[in-house]
Amino acid sequence: MPDPSDVPGDHAAVLAANAAFYRAFEDADLDAMSDLWEHSDRVSCVHPGWSALHGWGEVSASWATLFGGGQRLQFILTGEQVVVEGDIGWVSVEENLLAGDPAGGIGVSGTVSALNVFVRGATAWQMVAHHGAPVAERAG
Amino acid sequence: MPDPSDVPGDHAAVLAANAAFYRAFEDADLDAMSDLWEHSDRVSCVHPGWSALHGWGEVSASWATLFGGGQRLQFILTGEQVVVEGDIGWVSVEENLLAGDPAGGIGVSGTVSALNVFVRGATAWQMVAHHGAPVAERAG
Repeated sequence: MPDPSDVPGDHAAVLAANAAFYRAFEDADLDAMSDLWEHSDRVSCVHPGWSALHGWGEVSASWATLFGGGQRLQFILTGEQVVVEGDIGWVSVEENLLAGDPAGGIGVSGTVSALNVFVRGATAWQMVAHHGAPVAERAG
Repeated sequence: MPDPSDVPGDHAAVLAANAAFYRAFEDADLDAMSDLWEHSDRVSCVHPGWSALHGWGEVSASWATLFGGGQRLQFILTGEQVVVEGDIGWVSVEENLLAGDPAGGIGVSGTVSALNVFVRGATAWQMVAHHGAPVAERAG
């Protein structure tokens, strides 16, 4: 059942917003991260293993904490699925993580399954929810 | 910035759909679970620790597997935040789990932070994404 609002241009724009999110995350760029989120009470964010954070105040503080810790992450994104319905778009994606430490060593790796929700703004799609769930290691 | 589409009636309807989801889960009721999901390729589901499942075929198979295992869960829902934007609604909620086994014992407990996305249908809000992230135990 194709939806008439679910056009390829919207898909590409939502995927671009999603890519900008991971670029800001990799760069630990708090300004870029701030620019791409909606600054409102209705935003929510779950970092892997954390309880949900609600509202831009809590969410922005979490990014400041994460980016202040010095750890740098690299993301290899796989399994992207994008859906657009009206003015809302969401992306289901597997974040394959490579973590380095400030001294340049190679740290832990792992996979996080994320659901990212965006709302169409006047000039760009803005993030309203990021929800990261750690994927358990498989035996064998 | 209140949104004119974000009316209390929609909030209540989305929360009712969310409650129906957890009722079907607690009852291990595959028919009820099937009724409340959209049957389409665009649905996605992440069970805690699992990789993402895409499309109703994969998602429905996962519920059949989970419900066939005999484990019964009870959910105490806290921290519900509901947002409605046009024809999409989403709920961020903490699932506080009480697990029993078929013999009546009390099993593991834990907390899962979930993001549930619904789309407005002709007669009901239908689930298009369920994303469950385990919350790590806190020390102390």
